[in-house]
Amino acid sequence: MVYPGTVQEVQATVRWANKHLIPIYPISMGRNVGYGGTAPRVPGSVVVDLGRRMNRILDIDPENASCLLEPGVSYFALYEEIQRRGIPLWIDTPDVGGGSVLGNAIDRGVGYTPYGDHFANHCGMEIVLPSGELLRTGMGALPGKDGADNPTWQSFQPAYGPYTDGIFSQSNFGIVVRMGMWLMPEVGHQSYLITFPRDDDFSDIVEIIRPLAQQRVLGNIPQLRHVIQELATTARPRSDFYSGTGPMPREVIREHAAGLPVGDVAWVFYGTQYGDPGSISKQLDMIKAAFSRIPGSRFFLPSDLPESHYLHSRVSVCSGVPILRELDWLNWVPNAAHLFFNPIVPTRGWDARIVHDIIVRLHAKYGFDLLPTLCVAGREMHYIVNIVYDRSSVGEKRRAAALMREMIAEAAAEGFGEYRTHILFADMVAGTYNWGDNALMRFNETIKDALDPNGILAPGRNGIWPRRFRGKGWEIRGREVEEALDGKGIGPAS
Amino acid sequence: MVYPGTVQEVQATVRWANKHLIPIYPISMGRNVGYGGTAPRVPGSVVVDLGRRMNRILDIDPENASCLLEPGVSYFALYEEIQRRGIPLWIDTPDVGGGSVLGNAIDRGVGYTPYGDHFANHCGMEIVLPSGELLRTGMGALPGKDGADNPTWQSFQPAYGPYTDGIFSQSNFGIVVRMGMWLMPEVGHQSYLITFPRDDDFSDIVEIIRPLAQQRVLGNIPQLRHVIQELATTARPRSDFYSGTGPMPREVIREHAAGLPVGDVAWVFYGTQYGDPGSISKQLDMIKAAFSRIPGSRFFLPSDLPESHYLHSRVSVCSGVPILRELDWLNWVPNAAHLFFNPIVPTRGWDARIVHDIIVRLHAKYGFDLLPTLCVAGREMHYIVNIVYDRSSVGEKRRAAALMREMIAEAAAEGFGEYRTHILFADMVAGTYNWGDNALMRFNETIKDALDPNGILAPGRNGIWPRRFRGKGWEIRGREVEEALDGKGIGPAS
Repeated sequence: MVYPGTVQEVQATVRWANKHLIPIYPISMGRNVGYGGTAPRVPGSVVVDLGRRMNRILDIDPENASCLLEPGVSYFALYEEIQRRGIPLWIDTPDVGGGSVLGNAIDRGVGYTPYGDHFANHCGMEIVLPSGELLRTGMGALPGKDGADNPTWQSFQPAYGPYTDGIFSQSNFGIVVRMGMWLMPEVGHQSYLITFPRDDDFSDIVEIIRPLAQQRVLGNIPQLRHVIQELATTARPRSDFYSGTGPMPREVIREHAAGLPVGDVAWVFYGTQYGDPGSISKQLDMIKAAFSRIPGSRFFLPSDLPESHYLHSRVSVCSGVPILRELDWLNWVPNAAHLFFNPIVPTRGWDARIVHDIIVRLHAKYGFDLLPTLCVAGREMHYIVNIVYDRSSVGEKRRAAALMREMIAEAAAEGFGEYRTHILFADMVAGTYNWGDNALMRFNETIKDALDPNGILAPGRNGIWPRRFRGKGWEIRGREVEEALDGKGIGPAS
Repeated sequence: MVYPGTVQEVQATVRWANKHLIPIYPISMGRNVGYGGTAPRVPGSVVVDLGRRMNRILDIDPENASCLLEPGVSYFALYEEIQRRGIPLWIDTPDVGGGSVLGNAIDRGVGYTPYGDHFANHCGMEIVLPSGELLRTGMGALPGKDGADNPTWQSFQPAYGPYTDGIFSQSNFGIVVRMGMWLMPEVGHQSYLITFPRDDDFSDIVEIIRPLAQQRVLGNIPQLRHVIQELATTARPRSDFYSGTGPMPREVIREHAAGLPVGDVAWVFYGTQYGDPGSISKQLDMIKAAFSRIPGSRFFLPSDLPESHYLHSRVSVCSGVPILRELDWLNWVPNAAHLFFNPIVPTRGWDARIVHDIIVRLHAKYGFDLLPTLCVAGREMHYIVNIVYDRSSVGEKRRAAALMREMIAEAAAEGFGEYRTHILFADMVAGTYNWGDNALMRFNETIKDALDPNGILAPGRNGIWPRRFRGKGWEIRGREVEEALDGKGIGPAS
């Protein structure tokens, strides 16, 4: 583990790795354990922790509504600095605020304000290439006057010529050491939830969301959750509700939900509207009218619910205030660890149902509670499943891995692919994007070999292996993953 | 010139070019003559015209609000097909509707509805690589069920792993043969204009636009034009107004403007708001209140102006109806040709003034009327200058080229760079993005050589030269451009 404090030290580390052909594995802060945390894919890799010492907020520009950050700046740190300076700008935070703003954006993570697509709201990068050379993208490639940074580096994303930033997201083509992010002018906001009584309302809910989202009536990317998560977000362990093995039966969920504020329902929709009170009121009228087509739907404002209810956490997240509350579900099982499965699904009732049925069936088969959060946009939804397992149980860990494998394969057979995955499942997920005889992976490998001929930077990350690792059994495509969830890198298959 | 009709024929052309080392120069429809039209950069190149036969609308999906297009589909053709089918969706069209939807998007052109950033609103590509291999990007890389296209290809842009689409915009790394575009659900709209009396109001106008745009009060990217364009958009020649040489004097502009509907003003702001009538009315109140801080500003609706006024054209463009009216300025001089100069400038009065003063001074020096259109967003503006010259006059052509060269250099010295340029100025503009010892160009060349080792695809496009052309004097960086505006490729400097 090395802890560079400057860009020059990152460059020196990269050059050292090239000289000795030792793989390096950069992390920003490594907090997103559901996707792999700090664990490198290849044993013997040197982890380059950019979070500990490269944690400077290099600029906050109140006029341009933007900032320039190093990898170690967390959502909390950025939020607090903006508050300290009294600038009327919001950050956009994911569910948990302890991670790296830069790292989450280059992993293409999401949040919940109108700036929730983090990568789409970055502007300008500085990157240490695998050769050790330094690249600035966007307008930053044009020097400012008298050696200053370019005055539009955080104003305009693509600049002139090929727009390169995208290939540095979810990749191992370079180490992003500085990044600009846009900040949102603060605005009035109103969070709310809507409940739906029947499990079978699912398709209808999706069909109603689609036009509301496409017409931009919905103010952010709403979350649709199953009522079992109303139990999980109480921070109480599942054993408080059910002591049996296997997934909690529907009637047990029903019985306990009946005692919660939202009652015995099936689906819970969390949304937020933005603007002045008059606009918000008008938007809410349209939203209520649309969902009222589902019999038994009920609308709640935060004031309708006790202070402890999860909706109050959503108020914070959806107005740019970082929190840690989301980690409450780690109480769900003892020694909780988790994995995310997240296929991209069209916002269409029929398609959503196909994926949902696969996930329900396979969760039952492997004995896990289904904890789905659907982030539903106008054309697609991220169907995010959080598999929470007891990491002290070898059996449970193996079942979790087997469930992941089978969901990845079954969803792909129907044409649905993940937008992000845990590093141990990277080869499998990348392998589903195999149109045209694996044209995309061959393309990615061509770029990788051109930029990183010695194959030193994060081999295997996002399923991309440099030439010297290919064809040697490093890829994990089968059962071996079930023994590899211990956070250490694993070597080539025997 | 070849006219492929299928993807396979494009692949065959590319393979033929590799075999014989003959450069090929793909165009979609080649209509954007201000940026170079159909002319290849290297003499002897074979132009691959994708517009004539590859002009199918492969899909229009009313639910997903998207389409899948070949390169030869024009804005007019797409618009008419949507009308024919009676689908309540808008396209987003640039000022002139005769060009290629796909080509404009990969050149990162812009339009004026809320979907005006064309590249940002594309979704999924199919690309013939310089090797002749076929690549699908985004979710298209995951095969759909039973050999169908992926059901989310036009729903979600980045998919899994590096997001590659950006490097196929403004580049010569591949030939995009299919592309998805998002379409906007139709909505109420209201165009308007606001006039400002004094040339010196410029900085204040910019300062007022910034918060309105950042807070998304403005419904689209507005245009700010100088009053001289009120004369040019009458479609009358400049000789009707002024018979002298050199730029039309300010007092002559003033005298003629006084007889036009907007009167003797200096700046004209064209905007459009979207939504239901109540929302639009509220937005307009906020906008009027903000601009009323500039003494003498006046607000006009289309109904306040005669049918012939240019605002009525903006109503069409800003609601997705393609037109040709913008070409009216081609009447401004005889045998009109034109060049665009378009630096990216922060939306800040001070910076805008620096660039504006350079442009005013150099237009006066070279004797051209300044015809500026500023597309002003919340953080940056595209300061677009249209240099209209008489292409039958060698002297005027040379002065236009010299003006371009000098504006590129002077703007870059202040830190301002172009977002797009005519192919003959590509080397110069690319050369201004030279931070870190030309790190960006060296990076682009690394990618180019990896993907196109034989250097057959559009050498020199966007300033990127494949290895076998580099260091041989092909770049145009000086006066030779002043003799090269004849639409033929030019060889290496002697």
